[in-house]
Amino acid sequence: MWLSELASRGGVSVATAKYYLREGLVPPGEAVGATRARYDQSHVDRLRLVRALVDVAGLSLDQVRDVLAAMAAERSPAAAIGAAHYRLSPPPPTEPSAAALDRVRALVADRGWQVDDDSPHLVAVASALDAMEAAGQPLADTGLETYAASAGEVAKVDLEAMVASAGPAGEDAATYAVLGTLLTEPVLVGLRRMAQEHQARARLG
Amino acid sequence: MWLSELASRGGVSVATAKYYLREGLVPPGEAVGATRARYDQSHVDRLRLVRALVDVAGLSLDQVRDVLAAMAAERSPAAAIGAAHYRLSPPPPTEPSAAALDRVRALVADRGWQVDDDSPHLVAVASALDAMEAAGQPLADTGLETYAASAGEVAKVDLEAMVASAGPAGEDAATYAVLGTLLTEPVLVGLRRMAQEHQARARLG
Repeated sequence: MWLSELASRGGVSVATAKYYLREGLVPPGEAVGATRARYDQSHVDRLRLVRALVDVAGLSLDQVRDVLAAMAAERSPAAAIGAAHYRLSPPPPTEPSAAALDRVRALVADRGWQVDDDSPHLVAVASALDAMEAAGQPLADTGLETYAASAGEVAKVDLEAMVASAGPAGEDAATYAVLGTLLTEPVLVGLRRMAQEHQARARLG
Repeated sequence: MWLSELASRGGVSVATAKYYLREGLVPPGEAVGATRARYDQSHVDRLRLVRALVDVAGLSLDQVRDVLAAMAAERSPAAAIGAAHYRLSPPPPTEPSAAALDRVRALVADRGWQVDDDSPHLVAVASALDAMEAAGQPLADTGLETYAASAGEVAKVDLEAMVASAGPAGEDAATYAVLGTLLTEPVLVGLRRMAQEHQARARLG
């Protein structure tokens, strides 16, 4: 396909597609003559990924470049997913407390989750628990366990969809995971807000 | 308590506390002489709420003012929670499709959730479903149902904690709901990322 079709199928303007190509965020097409190039489905997929990282995740182009490089550098799909995901949980403004880190590590161990000991998600969760404590609204163990159980159910569905749709190939699976994580987070967060709206009405209305 | 203790218990610097007071985001204390004022627990609570809205939710001070005004204007706790929550789901950059809106409305009806027909959360979820479709990764019905079931479990725990901790008084419950929603979202999102990390390793590693 030509550039105009690539842009249209990627959901961006021709100017934006050109810009991403110039910045190296989307690899060059196959040159046809001096000024034209042909693109294929892999270019469309990459364009959609870049667009989601920018529009949905709010990453800067430098951060997008970093995520893409991390994905490309890994050999196994799981490692590529991990590397890409890690870029999505930036370090919190302040270090979490040792107590909160221990609490999250214990939760992960209890559930039998295989997670790196220095996973940025672990740090992000510990930091959020500290923030709740500081705001005078600590999260009780029962609450934390319900959250973890729900997150586990959701992640199972996510991985099933990923395996079914993208197959086990490296960057494809990682692309799917990053897109899937970013695009579904607003769904999950929005549904939970609606469920809270309902619960507030049913119990307090 | 004096200003310095208010700032310390609210987890901000004295300069920040003064700034929030000057901006009217925290109501004035009881004047003691010309230049001093006394503050109580309600001021600490308000200060923590403002801080969480700024630091955790990333709202501007104008948006914080808007949330606080919406909470104060409502009579019932449920209405105050709804009004505050609505400010947390800003309109998406593009209108969701009618098909996505219908899909979310049907889901809400199936679960028996009492949600306003024009709830901004409903619009936000529909818009996220459109984004997944556009990215070539539509969310299957089974996935959406798992998300909704998980969100429902989480919201039940949230409301139990809210009722137990804040009692049914108007602004207290709304404060708790807003803080609870904002502060726990990073916990939920982080746990889900860890669960995905585990699933990716277990299934693709």
